[in-house]
Amino acid sequence: MTTTTTWDPTTLTSRYDAVRSHTERLASPLSPEDQTVQSMPDVSPTKWHRAHVTWFFETFVLSEHEPGFAPFQDQYWFLFNSYYEGIGPRYARPDRGLVTRPGAHEVGDYRGNVDERMRDLMTTLDEGTLDKLAATIELGFHHEQQHQELLLMDIKHVLSRNPLQPVYAGRPRASCEPDAMGWVDVEGGLVEVGHEGGGFSFDNELPRHRQWLEPYRLADRLVTNGEWLEFMRDGGYARPDLWLSDGWATVRAEDWDAPFYWTEHDGVWLEHTLHGTFPVNPGLPVSHVSFYEAEAYATWAGKRLPSEAEWEHAVVQDGQAGAEATAGNLADDESYHPSPAPDHDGKHRLRQVYGDCWEWTSSAYHPYPGFHPPEGAIGEYNGKFMSNQMVLRGGCALTPAGHARATYRNFFPHRSRWALSGVRLADGGVARDLT
Amino acid sequence: MTTTTTWDPTTLTSRYDAVRSHTERLASPLSPEDQTVQSMPDVSPTKWHRAHVTWFFETFVLSEHEPGFAPFQDQYWFLFNSYYEGIGPRYARPDRGLVTRPGAHEVGDYRGNVDERMRDLMTTLDEGTLDKLAATIELGFHHEQQHQELLLMDIKHVLSRNPLQPVYAGRPRASCEPDAMGWVDVEGGLVEVGHEGGGFSFDNELPRHRQWLEPYRLADRLVTNGEWLEFMRDGGYARPDLWLSDGWATVRAEDWDAPFYWTEHDGVWLEHTLHGTFPVNPGLPVSHVSFYEAEAYATWAGKRLPSEAEWEHAVVQDGQAGAEATAGNLADDESYHPSPAPDHDGKHRLRQVYGDCWEWTSSAYHPYPGFHPPEGAIGEYNGKFMSNQMVLRGGCALTPAGHARATYRNFFPHRSRWALSGVRLADGGVARDLT
Amino acid sequence: MTTTTTWDPTTLTSRYDAVRSHTERLASPLSPEDQTVQSMPDVSPTKWHRAHVTWFFETFVLSEHEPGFAPFQDQYWFLFNSYYEGIGPRYARPDRGLVTRPGAHEVGDYRGNVDERMRDLMTTLDEGTLDKLAATIELGFHHEQQHQELLLMDIKHVLSRNPLQPVYAGRPRASCEPDAMGWVDVEGGLVEVGHEGGGFSFDNELPRHRQWLEPYRLADRLVTNGEWLEFMRDGGYARPDLWLSDGWATVRAEDWDAPFYWTEHDGVWLEHTLHGTFPVNPGLPVSHVSFYEAEAYATWAGKRLPSEAEWEHAVVQDGQAGAEATAGNLADDESYHPSPAPDHDGKHRLRQVYGDCWEWTSSAYHPYPGFHPPEGAIGEYNGKFMSNQMVLRGGCALTPAGHARATYRNFFPHRSRWALSGVRLADGGVARDLT
Amino acid sequence: MTTTTTWDPTTLTSRYDAVRSHTERLASPLSPEDQTVQSMPDVSPTKWHRAHVTWFFETFVLSEHEPGFAPFQDQYWFLFNSYYEGIGPRYARPDRGLVTRPGAHEVGDYRGNVDERMRDLMTTLDEGTLDKLAATIELGFHHEQQHQELLLMDIKHVLSRNPLQPVYAGRPRASCEPDAMGWVDVEGGLVEVGHEGGGFSFDNELPRHRQWLEPYRLADRLVTNGEWLEFMRDGGYARPDLWLSDGWATVRAEDWDAPFYWTEHDGVWLEHTLHGTFPVNPGLPVSHVSFYEAEAYATWAGKRLPSEAEWEHAVVQDGQAGAEATAGNLADDESYHPSPAPDHDGKHRLRQVYGDCWEWTSSAYHPYPGFHPPEGAIGEYNGKFMSNQMVLRGGCALTPAGHARATYRNFFPHRSRWALSGVRLADGGVARDLT
Repeated sequence: MTTTTTWDPTTLTSRYDAVRSHTERLASPLSPEDQTVQSMPDVSPTKWHRAHVTWFFETFVLSEHEPGFAPFQDQYWFLFNSYYEGIGPRYARPDRGLVTRPGAHEVGDYRGNVDERMRDLMTTLDEGTLDKLAATIELGFHHEQQHQELLLMDIKHVLSRNPLQPVYAGRPRASCEPDAMGWVDVEGGLVEVGHEGGGFSFDNELPRHRQWLEPYRLADRLVTNGEWLEFMRDGGYARPDLWLSDGWATVRAEDWDAPFYWTEHDGVWLEHTLHGTFPVNPGLPVSHVSFYEAEAYATWAGKRLPSEAEWEHAVVQDGQAGAEATAGNLADDESYHPSPAPDHDGKHRLRQVYGDCWEWTSSAYHPYPGFHPPEGAIGEYNGKFMSNQMVLRGGCALTPAGHARATYRNFFPHRSRWALSGVRLADGGVARDLT
Repeated sequence: MTTTTTWDPTTLTSRYDAVRSHTERLASPLSPEDQTVQSMPDVSPTKWHRAHVTWFFETFVLSEHEPGFAPFQDQYWFLFNSYYEGIGPRYARPDRGLVTRPGAHEVGDYRGNVDERMRDLMTTLDEGTLDKLAATIELGFHHEQQHQELLLMDIKHVLSRNPLQPVYAGRPRASCEPDAMGWVDVEGGLVEVGHEGGGFSFDNELPRHRQWLEPYRLADRLVTNGEWLEFMRDGGYARPDLWLSDGWATVRAEDWDAPFYWTEHDGVWLEHTLHGTFPVNPGLPVSHVSFYEAEAYATWAGKRLPSEAEWEHAVVQDGQAGAEATAGNLADDESYHPSPAPDHDGKHRLRQVYGDCWEWTSSAYHPYPGFHPPEGAIGEYNGKFMSNQMVLRGGCALTPAGHARATYRNFFPHRSRWALSGVRLADGGVARDLT
Repeated sequence: MTTTTTWDPTTLTSRYDAVRSHTERLASPLSPEDQTVQSMPDVSPTKWHRAHVTWFFETFVLSEHEPGFAPFQDQYWFLFNSYYEGIGPRYARPDRGLVTRPGAHEVGDYRGNVDERMRDLMTTLDEGTLDKLAATIELGFHHEQQHQELLLMDIKHVLSRNPLQPVYAGRPRASCEPDAMGWVDVEGGLVEVGHEGGGFSFDNELPRHRQWLEPYRLADRLVTNGEWLEFMRDGGYARPDLWLSDGWATVRAEDWDAPFYWTEHDGVWLEHTLHGTFPVNPGLPVSHVSFYEAEAYATWAGKRLPSEAEWEHAVVQDGQAGAEATAGNLADDESYHPSPAPDHDGKHRLRQVYGDCWEWTSSAYHPYPGFHPPEGAIGEYNGKFMSNQMVLRGGCALTPAGHARATYRNFFPHRSRWALSGVRLADGGVARDLT
Repeated sequence: MTTTTTWDPTTLTSRYDAVRSHTERLASPLSPEDQTVQSMPDVSPTKWHRAHVTWFFETFVLSEHEPGFAPFQDQYWFLFNSYYEGIGPRYARPDRGLVTRPGAHEVGDYRGNVDERMRDLMTTLDEGTLDKLAATIELGFHHEQQHQELLLMDIKHVLSRNPLQPVYAGRPRASCEPDAMGWVDVEGGLVEVGHEGGGFSFDNELPRHRQWLEPYRLADRLVTNGEWLEFMRDGGYARPDLWLSDGWATVRAEDWDAPFYWTEHDGVWLEHTLHGTFPVNPGLPVSHVSFYEAEAYATWAGKRLPSEAEWEHAVVQDGQAGAEATAGNLADDESYHPSPAPDHDGKHRLRQVYGDCWEWTSSAYHPYPGFHPPEGAIGEYNGKFMSNQMVLRGGCALTPAGHARATYRNFFPHRSRWALSGVRLADGGVARDLT
C-alpha cells in the first residue's frame, strides 16, 4: 500500500473511530446466531469479520509498537489470521463457521479492548514513529472497509439460505424504468494507468505505467435485469456457442439458469435481496453474475467486456477519479443512481460507475509491470492472490463511502457469483487480457 | 413401534414433562452460537434437535387430534421435518446449520407453545382416543430421547472443532486401571431374539423370531484405550491385511491413524471429551471408532465381532434385559462402571453393557424376518434406513436413562465415528452377517 | 425438614435429574433479557432463580461432602445466597436485578457443572453417608420446586410491565360457566394437624399436634371472578367498613380497585396472564388478591376465611391428603379443574384444592407448638420467616407436580398480590388466629 | 437549536452514518443482559438509549416527511419517548429497566430500519425541503451524542453494582504526578456570553447577551484526587460548616464520605472505572462529585466555584472556543491531558477544559434573557428542565468528539454524582448565581 497522506493524531484517531464504528453498525441488526454461520466456503461469519479486522490492528500495529504488548487472547492470533503465512499457521478458511466461541458479544469485548489500546498508542506516539506507523494504520482502515463490504455480501448469502426469508434491513426500491443505453467514445492512445499518488492506494494499483489503447467505446450504463431476461429467453444459458469452455462446464455442473439470487416461482423471477425477496426489477442493473456469465452475455450481445485499462482510462477522462461522493450505500443492494442526461453537447457520460455493481473486466488479475510487494508479512496483502482471478472495477452498493476509486482493482475467481458483480459492455478497440 | 403400556393422563403428562425438560437441560449450557452450528453433515445443530422433536409432536399428534389445529409457524413444518417424505418436502440435512433463524430462544417459544397444547390435549381426551394416541405420544418420547443422545454426540463434535477447546460441562474422571478381560461362555442353540412385548419397542425390534447360535463366548468388558494403543503401536492403521477392502480405502482416504477424537501432541495422545481435552486414559473403553476399525482390531486380536443375535442372547441370559437402572449419564462420556468381580462360582458376567459405548456387531442392519412397517408417514420411522448400515447394541454414556434395552437396535454407517461406538470381542461360534 | 423416604442412588439421581431439568424447561422460552430483570423487590430474575437453587446444592451438599471441593466461582457464593446468614454476607435482595453477569448462558454453565458433580457424588457415596445426605438433597428438590413456582409468578410480573404484552407460553382457556357453590360440613372436635411422617415435609409442618375445632363448613369451590365483580360493583373497594384497618390503609395508599393483574379498558375488565391479556373469565377462580382483599370479601359475603387447621382437617377428611395426581400445570394460570358432582348421597366434596390458587387462611404464620428448627445454616430455612405473614394452603396452577400436600404451609405478607392467591370461604365454627 | 450550517445530502448522510455508527460501537462490548438493566432511576438501559435516539429521527423527521410513513412498531412510539409530552403519553422513566422486549438485537433491527429510511429521505429530498429539515436532523445528531455520553455514564453505574466487577473496556492509565495548580487572571468587564452563530448550538445557549464581570481568576487545572483526599482527611465530609444546608442534609441522609465510585478497602481508597476497580490515582482530576461536594470543597479551600459566564468568557479568551480537536475519548474515564507548560511569558493557560470532567459552576440553570423555546414538541428539548439544576461547563472523557464547545450548557441536579463531574476553582471577582 502507499499513501502520501500526512496524519496528525487527532485526524488519525477520528478516522479510526469512524471506520471501526461503521463495522459495528453493520453487525447490529444481526443476532448471535446470524453472526456465527458460514453458509459456503467463500463466506465468512459476521463475527469472524469483526474479529479479523481487529486482529489486523493487534498484529501489525500493537504487537510491534505497544509497550509491554500482550495479545488479548493467545488463541485469537490463530483463529482470526486469514492468510498471513508470515505470522504463523492459520485456521482453515472453510472452518470459520465452526468457531462458536468466542461469541458475538465476546468479539465485541475484543474490539473494545483493541480500540482502547489503539487510541492510547495513536495519541502518545512521537511524531516520527507516527509517521512510520500511519501507513499501516491507514492500510488497516481500508482493510476493514473491504471486510465491511464482504460482511454484507456474506450475510446476504447466509440469509438467502433460510426459508423464513429473513430481512437484513430496510425496504426495496420502487420499480423503475431503464434508460436507453448510450455509448461513450474514448480515443485511447498511449495512456497512463495505475495510482498516481496523492492519497491511499493498495500496492496492487502500482506502479503507474503506460499502456496503448486503440479507440473504443464503453456503455454509459450497466446491463439491466430486463436485458438479462432477454438473454435468458433467447436460451442464453443453453447455448454452448456463447460460452468459454470452462464457463460452459460450470453452467452444466452447477445447473445455472439465471443470476445467483434469482428463483422462479409460478413463472415469475424473484430476487433475494438484503431487504427481502421480490420480483426482479427490470430497470435495475443485473447483479450476482459470474465472469463466465458476463462474458457470455457480451458475446450474445455482439459486444465484449472492457479491459481494466480501458475502464480506468475512460472513468478518469470522464472526471470520476474520486469516488468519495458517489460511493454506495449501506445495505442498499438495489440502489439506482439516477442517470444524468447526456451533456448539452450530446455526448454521453459514464453512469453507475461506483455505487451499483462491481464490473467484470476482461483482464486477469496480474501484477502491474515492475510490481514489488512490500517486505514482511504485510507484503502478503495482495500479491499472493495474483492467479486465477479476474479484475473487477468500480464499486458496488455495499462499498463503504470513500473506499472506491478509479484505480482500485478488485478481483474474484471466474465463477464467483456471491459478490455484487455486474456487466458494462465495451465495443471497438481490441479485446485484451482475456484469460 | 409397539407397546403394551396402558397410560392414564396423569402418568402420560408427567412422562411427557420429564422427557421434554431433559432436552432443555441438555441445551442449557450452550450459547446461541453453540446451538446454531452444524460442524459436518452428520451433525445437527442443537436448536435443530430441540425444534425437530417438537415438530414430531406437532405433526403426528396435534395436527391430527387438536381441535382447530393450526401450526405454530407454517415454515417450521418444512424446516424441522427430518426425513418423513410422507409429510412433504424436506429441508436438506446438510443445510441445517444455515438456519440462523428461528434463534435459540425462539425455538424455546416453539417448545413452550407445543408443550402447552400437548398438555391440554392429553388432559382432555376421552379414554378411547387417548388409548389410540398414547402409542404415538410414547414413540415421541423415545424419539426425543434418541435426539437427546444425538444432541450430545453432535455438540461434542461442534466443540471439538474449536481451537479454544471449550468445555460442555463437568470434569474428567481420574485415571483408572483396566481390569483383566474375562470371557463369558454362552451355550447358544435355538434362541429367540427380538422384543417380546411388555413395554415399548421400536418397530425394528420386531417380530420376535428364532435363530440358531453355535456355542460362543463374549468378552466380559469392552476393549480399552490401552489395548487400542497396542494395536496402534503394532502398526494397526498401516497394515492392509487387517482391514476390509472398503475399510482400508477409508483409512487411506481419510488419513486415519487413531480413534476419532484423538490427537498426538509432543508424543502424548490426547482425547477431546465433553469435559475438555486430556491425555488418553488407558483403563477406559476405547470409543469413537468406526465399524471398520472395530473389525480390524478384532482381526488383529485374533477374535471377531459378535453378531447382534449373539449379543442380545448373551445379555438377556446374563439377566440384563432391563436397562433402566444402568443407563448412562448426562454428558459423562468417560463414565466407567465399576466392574463386579466374577461371581463366587468363578463365572464371568457381562460388564459395561449399557452405559459406556455402543458396541459394533457384525450384523448389517436389515429387517427381521416378517417385518412390516406401520402404515402412514410414521412408518418411515426406521424402515427406510435399512441399507448400508451396521447394527450396534447396548447403549452409551450419553444415552438417556431408561432408553436402553437388550433388544434395541442402533445403526450407523460403517465409517461413522462421531458416535460413542466401541468394541466388545467375540470368540468361538460362527461369524455371521458380516457385510 | 423431615422425611422417612429411603433413597437408593439410582432413584435419587433420577429424581435429581427430573427436578433440575424442569427448571431449565420453564426458563427456555425466556430471552436473556427476560431472565435478567427484577420488576419489583418481591420478584427475582429468572436467572437468579436458576443459579440460587444450584447454589443450594453446591453449598449444603457438595461443599461438605465432595472430595477436594472448590466452588465453581467464589463470587457466586455471595451472589446467589438468598437468606442464609449462617453462610456469610448476602447480596441484597432488591439488587438481584442489577447482576447482568453471569449471563443466562453462564448460569447454564454453572448448573451443568454442579449437576455433573452432584451425579458423581450421588453415585459414589457409601450407603451410610448417602442415608445421612439424602435428606438434604431431598430438601434441595423441594426447595427447587418452590423456586419453580416463584419463577413463574415472577416472570408473570416482569412481562406484565411490558406494554408490548409479551406472552410466556400457550393459549388461554375458553370461557366457562361457574358451578353453584356448595358447602362441605365438617364436624370438628379434637383433631390432629401437621405432617404425620411417611414422605417429605418441611420443618414448619411439624410437630404434629392436637387442636380443637368447633363444627364448621367450607365452600366446595373457590370464589370466582364473577363473584368478585359483584363485590366490586357493590363498592367493595370503597367501603372502609369491610376492611381491616391496615387493609383499608393499603387500599388507599396503593389505589387498589381490583385484583392485581386486572385493568379496565373501555368498560371491560382485562386480566394479564402468562398467555396474554384477555377479558376476565367469570367462571374461573379469582386470583392475585391479597389477604386484606380476601378478608374483606369474606366480610362482605357474610362469611369468613378458614383457619389453617380447619382447612387441613377438612381436606384430609375429604381424602385429599396426597396431592401427586392433582397438582397444577406448567404455566397454566387459569387452569380450571372440572367439578365433580356431589356424591350420590348428596354430600359435597372439596374441589379446586391444589391446582388453582393458594388459599388465604385466617392463620398467622407461627411455629407449631414444640417446633425447633434444625441446627446449622439450613435451620434458617423456614423459621426466620415466622412473623408478619399469613398462611396459605393448597397449591396453585403453577405448583410443580408432586409438590403440594395437605399439610403444606405456604405464607406471604398480608398485602402480597403477585402470587396466585385466592379465596375459599368458611362458615360456622369459630374464627381464629386472625392477625 | 440553531445552526447556520448549510448541508448537502452527501455530507448530511455521511455525518448521519458516523453518529449512528458510533452508538452501536459503544454498545458492542455489552451483552443483552448488560443492555437491559436500569440500576437506578437516573440511569437508562443501553438498549433504551439505542432505541430512543432512533425514535427521535422516526418521530421528528420521518413521521413528518416520509411518503406513506408508518411507524416501525406502533408501541415503540410510546416505549421510547423520553419526555416529549407534546407527542403523547410517555412510558415512565423509572420503568425503563422493565422492558425486556424488544431485546438488544431487535433494537438493532429498529435502528437498521430507520437508518435505511433516513438515508432514502436524505438523498431524495428537494433542496428546499432539505434546508428546512436539516436543522432537525442536525439536532438529532447532537441529541444522539448526548445519549452516547449518557450511555457510558449509565453502563458505568450498572457495572459498578455487580460484585464480579466486570470491565467495560480497556485498561487503566499508569499513575501520574499532579502538576502544581496555577491561576489564570481574567480582566472581565462587559463581556458577551452565549452562542454567536456559525455552527450548531442548542437553544439554551441563546440568545447571546452581555454581562458584567469583575476581575477574577480561574485555576488552570481541575482539583485532583490527591487534593480531595486532603479534604477528606481534614474532615471534609464531617464538618457542617463547609456545606450548604441542603448539601449537609444530603451528606447525612446518604452517608457520603467520598466521591461516588470510591470505596475503602483495607485502608486504601479504590475507584470503580469502566476499566475495572483500582486504587485512586492522586494525580488525576477528582470526578463523580456532586454540586454540593464541589461547593463544600471550594469553601474548604478558601475559594469558590466560577459562574458560568466567568467560565465561558475565560475559555473563549484563552482561545479554546472550538472543542473539536480536544474532546474526550471513548470510554476513557481517567484520561489525563498532559499539561502544557506556562507560556514563555509566564502566563498560565487553561488546561483540562473539555476532555476530563464536566465542571460545576455556581450558576443555576435558567433561561438566558430573552430566551424563547421553539414551537412544537421539539421546543420541549431544553426549556422544560430549567429548574432545580445547576450548570456544568466543558466536557468530559466520555463526551463524543465534536460535541463540546465553550457555550455548551450542561446541567444536573445538585446532588447528582453518576456523571463525570469535577471541580475547577475560581477566585476574586464576585460569586454570583449561587442557588
